[in-house]
Amino acid sequence: MKISSNRKFTLQELAEKTGAVLEGDGAVEINGVAPIEQAGRGEISFVANKSYLKYIDTTEASALVLAPETACERRPVLRHENPYLTFARIIDLFHPEQLLLPAGIDKTAVVADDVEIAPTAAIGPLCHISRGARIGHNSQLVSSVFIGENVTLGDNCRLYPGVKIMDECKIGRNVILHPGVVIGSDGFGFAWSGTEHKKIQQIGWVEIEDDVEIGANTTVDRGALGPTRIGRGTKIDNLVQIAHNVEIGQNCIIVSQAGISGSTKVGHGVIIAGQAGLIGHLEIGDKAVIGAQAGVAKSVPPGKAVLGSPARDIMEEKRITTIQKRLPELLKRLKAVEDKLAED
Amino acid sequence: MKISSNRKFTLQELAEKTGAVLEGDGAVEINGVAPIEQAGRGEISFVANKSYLKYIDTTEASALVLAPETACERRPVLRHENPYLTFARIIDLFHPEQLLLPAGIDKTAVVADDVEIAPTAAIGPLCHISRGARIGHNSQLVSSVFIGENVTLGDNCRLYPGVKIMDECKIGRNVILHPGVVIGSDGFGFAWSGTEHKKIQQIGWVEIEDDVEIGANTTVDRGALGPTRIGRGTKIDNLVQIAHNVEIGQNCIIVSQAGISGSTKVGHGVIIAGQAGLIGHLEIGDKAVIGAQAGVAKSVPPGKAVLGSPARDIMEEKRITTIQKRLPELLKRLKAVEDKLAED
Amino acid sequence: MKISSNRKFTLQELAEKTGAVLEGDGAVEINGVAPIEQAGRGEISFVANKSYLKYIDTTEASALVLAPETACERRPVLRHENPYLTFARIIDLFHPEQLLLPAGIDKTAVVADDVEIAPTAAIGPLCHISRGARIGHNSQLVSSVFIGENVTLGDNCRLYPGVKIMDECKIGRNVILHPGVVIGSDGFGFAWSGTEHKKIQQIGWVEIEDDVEIGANTTVDRGALGPTRIGRGTKIDNLVQIAHNVEIGQNCIIVSQAGISGSTKVGHGVIIAGQAGLIGHLEIGDKAVIGAQAGVAKSVPPGKAVLGSPARDIMEEKRITTIQKRLPELLKRLKAVEDKLAED
Repeated sequence: MKISSNRKFTLQELAEKTGAVLEGDGAVEINGVAPIEQAGRGEISFVANKSYLKYIDTTEASALVLAPETACERRPVLRHENPYLTFARIIDLFHPEQLLLPAGIDKTAVVADDVEIAPTAAIGPLCHISRGARIGHNSQLVSSVFIGENVTLGDNCRLYPGVKIMDECKIGRNVILHPGVVIGSDGFGFAWSGTEHKKIQQIGWVEIEDDVEIGANTTVDRGALGPTRIGRGTKIDNLVQIAHNVEIGQNCIIVSQAGISGSTKVGHGVIIAGQAGLIGHLEIGDKAVIGAQAGVAKSVPPGKAVLGSPARDIMEEKRITTIQKRLPELLKRLKAVEDKLAED
Repeated sequence: MKISSNRKFTLQELAEKTGAVLEGDGAVEINGVAPIEQAGRGEISFVANKSYLKYIDTTEASALVLAPETACERRPVLRHENPYLTFARIIDLFHPEQLLLPAGIDKTAVVADDVEIAPTAAIGPLCHISRGARIGHNSQLVSSVFIGENVTLGDNCRLYPGVKIMDECKIGRNVILHPGVVIGSDGFGFAWSGTEHKKIQQIGWVEIEDDVEIGANTTVDRGALGPTRIGRGTKIDNLVQIAHNVEIGQNCIIVSQAGISGSTKVGHGVIIAGQAGLIGHLEIGDKAVIGAQAGVAKSVPPGKAVLGSPARDIMEEKRITTIQKRLPELLKRLKAVEDKLAED
Repeated sequence: MKISSNRKFTLQELAEKTGAVLEGDGAVEINGVAPIEQAGRGEISFVANKSYLKYIDTTEASALVLAPETACERRPVLRHENPYLTFARIIDLFHPEQLLLPAGIDKTAVVADDVEIAPTAAIGPLCHISRGARIGHNSQLVSSVFIGENVTLGDNCRLYPGVKIMDECKIGRNVILHPGVVIGSDGFGFAWSGTEHKKIQQIGWVEIEDDVEIGANTTVDRGALGPTRIGRGTKIDNLVQIAHNVEIGQNCIIVSQAGISGSTKVGHGVIIAGQAGLIGHLEIGDKAVIGAQAGVAKSVPPGKAVLGSPARDIMEEKRITTIQKRLPELLKRLKAVEDKLAED
């Protein structure tokens, strides 16, 4: 099966619409996009990752999007410094985003009396909107979405089935929440009384700025007292945990199954790779990079890359890992030295 | 934005109601709680973590809750050995817990004929209660909660949107289940037949005792034959996995993204930090502490703290981690020794 | 409490129905199954794990399923090379799988006009089936299940409460999806434009072959362009992340909280233990074994077992782990050698 599109463009048109440089026959007609190893006639593909260079000679794609320096002799090419971005734009041309639902409120949705829902918004089947909530223009709640009391949701948001946004949370514009996302669950806060873990009421909230996307079944806890905050343009993958009072800057990338503990502050443009864990009350500087499975127990300065558990400077960690591999050899060498000294 | 309260207390009243010792002007009027770095006039805050001591002189809070030994000259103070606990009690005074829903069954809920629902219980919109279920007094099912057949749910429970409790599970009193929690999904059990993984039917159940709280999207599997059990007062964070036939004692703390494999027994008062993993069939003694990201492959005696993957005694692990950091230096020193011996 | 069955078999009958060899009195009547340490009169149990051998003499079970070589003098035994498999078959005899729901569409379900639902299928309360979907014979959607546009679901599937299958995904026969599973959420793909993370539209889909079982709150992302694929008979535990364009072969076992990054190809019969993480674009050969918490950054050849983060050959990793434990001692020995050389 292929995802088909009923749109067509000449290569010349694609070059113009994406700002890429055409190399070869601009009249070639393109009717779809495909991965390079599966692309056929009439389709365009791309290479952005070295491991796919090997397909350039054998692909049956009618054209390719490539970086300026990538050799390709046998077919027309669109050249761009960022082939991945250019290809993303081409996908958008063939598959313009569609509204999932017609505007209006489905008759099976449960909506409190005093909510404000923009007339262009779509509230799908079996959604539940609590009192005081506000839903912005063109926002789409696909199915079985829960919106708590006094939640505000901006324009052009897309909330997939089973999303739950708890009371008092504030969501900006163009926010995408994938199925099962939970926003504003209680933070994990208890004080030991001597006989029981006394619950600290979590009376804060969550603020999610514009252009944020959050993956399936990810959880974002409300602040204990103030907000938990996710900055504009930050993208979060599936099954991530964001604890109470965490503050995340703009344009961060947080990969699947990572976890950030309470009150940690993450700067702008930070990358946190899969399954990494950060303890609480840290500061992670702008553009820092946290490696996969890293266990971060200390603040990380801006621009620094760390890896390992406990996390260290990435170059140091790699050096240590290399020597660890040699431990059996080093043990033998130490023994040899000891033996030699014993002989003397 | 701040979470406002319409209640007011004098500092004197707060001291009396929490058992704290007043230091300074008891007539000061307090109208809310706030984090120390954001608190303003009329608000009370606290310090329980050393890294917030720096705010004591600069905060605009009208009063602070502090430990007996923490210096504070410029404003009135409530002194208590456990400032965090005292502050939790003060939050409760300003924000008494409210019923989320009126008693009764929402008209969009689907309720089988032979269930027993206390008249004081609230069954919110789009919930589904299967036959034979019993729901206790004052329990609240906020929205889209699924209750399987013959489930019993005690008094004063709070089940947030999207909670699912599968057939035959037993939930005690005062249990809080956050959005998306799954209780009683099948355990992961298969026997290889030579050609396929034959499913072992999971005919057990889950028992959750009183005062347990479980975080968003956490999963607790039903036992294969008998129960999976979570003891009274235990608190579990988001995205945790509890496998079949696990038994967890009382007053444990299990932090986000930890996982406990099948049939492992965890004692009372155990702390399992974030992203830790325990293999199956272990025994974890009372008050043991499992560090973040630890990989526990052996039973842990009572009171012992472990860290690392594979997990070791925490002091040993820290010593090893320190030496690992020095491996490049040790390699050089070994080489120097070898060279010297070769010279001789 | 015990799970009771209203069925009875003689030991002779159980031997015949499971192909086990009877040892002892075949007339003994058995009326249920139980774990060995809890089994009572009239019940049968088994031992497949060495740590339970100690119960053989003390159990009150009326019969046991054991491997040919396991000694047992005091009660009748069913002998089979695979006691666990045999016991699974006995459980099926006492607890034959029951239909959860009557065929038909619940009146609270929301079903688009042009769907095809087999007359033997059951669509439970509060489900939502989007246009173009097809639901096969005897498939059961328990409650609050979301089925996207043009989804095909084969025969005999069981979808537990809160399962969400997004548009265009294809699910085979006999597939079990536990509560909260998300199939076909968008993959995590963005291209940095210089000012923002531009979303790569995820226009692929997910294909799940026959006999697959997927655990609670696990997420499987749709392909970016083509499919994400899970092969026949593969079993996946709770809270696992399967990223876009991953391909998983047949009869794999993927344990809780593991994560597989984009475009990685996993062969047949692979075991991926709990909390393991695989980076993207790898190839994992047939019957490879990935240890718990492993961090796999390189392809793994068929049959190979790896462990650690970064993952290494399991024997090498264990050797290194053993030496790491001795690092404090090695440091002292190195110091002693240095001192001795300094003396000379």
